[in-house]
Amino acid sequence: MDVDALRRRAAADLAACGIVVTPDDEAAIEVTDLGLGAFEREGLTLLTYVNNDRYCAKELLLLPGQSCPQHRHPPVGASPGKQETFRCRRGEVFLHLDGAPTPSPVAAPPAESCEWYTVRHEIRLRPGEQHTIPPDTWHWFQAGPAGAIVSEFSSTSTDEADVFADPRVRRVASEP
Amino acid sequence: MDVDALRRRAAADLAACGIVVTPDDEAAIEVTDLGLGAFEREGLTLLTYVNNDRYCAKELLLLPGQSCPQHRHPPVGASPGKQETFRCRRGEVFLHLDGAPTPSPVAAPPAESCEWYTVRHEIRLRPGEQHTIPPDTWHWFQAGPAGAIVSEFSSTSTDEADVFADPRVRRVASEP
Repeated sequence: MDVDALRRRAAADLAACGIVVTPDDEAAIEVTDLGLGAFEREGLTLLTYVNNDRYCAKELLLLPGQSCPQHRHPPVGASPGKQETFRCRRGEVFLHLDGAPTPSPVAAPPAESCEWYTVRHEIRLRPGEQHTIPPDTWHWFQAGPAGAIVSEFSSTSTDEADVFADPRVRRVASEP
Repeated sequence: MDVDALRRRAAADLAACGIVVTPDDEAAIEVTDLGLGAFEREGLTLLTYVNNDRYCAKELLLLPGQSCPQHRHPPVGASPGKQETFRCRRGEVFLHLDGAPTPSPVAAPPAESCEWYTVRHEIRLRPGEQHTIPPDTWHWFQAGPAGAIVSEFSSTSTDEADVFADPRVRRVASEP
């Protein structure tokens, strides 16, 4: 992955969405393929505004059709686990949660990893739409054909505690 | 105050900033003059995306030169008080906190209420700049000449617990 190029692209996409990104922000953009080596298929780009012991706020960017693999945020210490609210800014995102399987979902799990994508209740978020994901519940999400920018408001992020269904996933940030 | 007109203006300002606002969002926009009867001088317009028992996220809108009066977020139950991060999206905002008085501040408290604006450490936030305000500390803020849109990421909002320096303030939302 050409991480610098992906950061520049993300900064440009945020700017096109009206979000002012400083040079420091751009340098801090996180690009991850989750250790799967197929970034365009499964990966995520993140700009974290703030993450402290009380709350967290980020922008998530997804390429067209890109998926973030199924995971959950388990309890950490006294916390019941990270709770998060996704609000779609641009494009569309298909969020998948535990619950009644959606009869004709729009999004399909990546074929190479589909055994690790098991929750099938699909929620479509278009710009201005939002949904809150309870702590410690399985979820995965995939952008529509134009990609997506999603604001995430949440309790504290503790990425290292996240549990992914796919045992091959390594939740490590890209090196600069 | 023509609250509906102010809501429409706020929704248009958010849209111009690239923020998609649904009809439900627009109807939920809060417009308050804080009971002071001089909205253009002292007042605030807010769109709250989410406020639960763990975190909160809002957009704050200020008219040109409009001030939000000095207040603090005291402890509530087990919480040390609301902590908040302001990130400027558009225009500029002058945030004032306890600390060494800024020698030549840009913003001046409204003359009619200046006795209740006592903290004088000024932090200027332009688009892409942000600052975190600790719990239970006095602060007030004022927009620059073009107004401001500011994203606020925070712990839970409990507006009814807020303490304002000016005893005339009533932190009540406008009626629809």
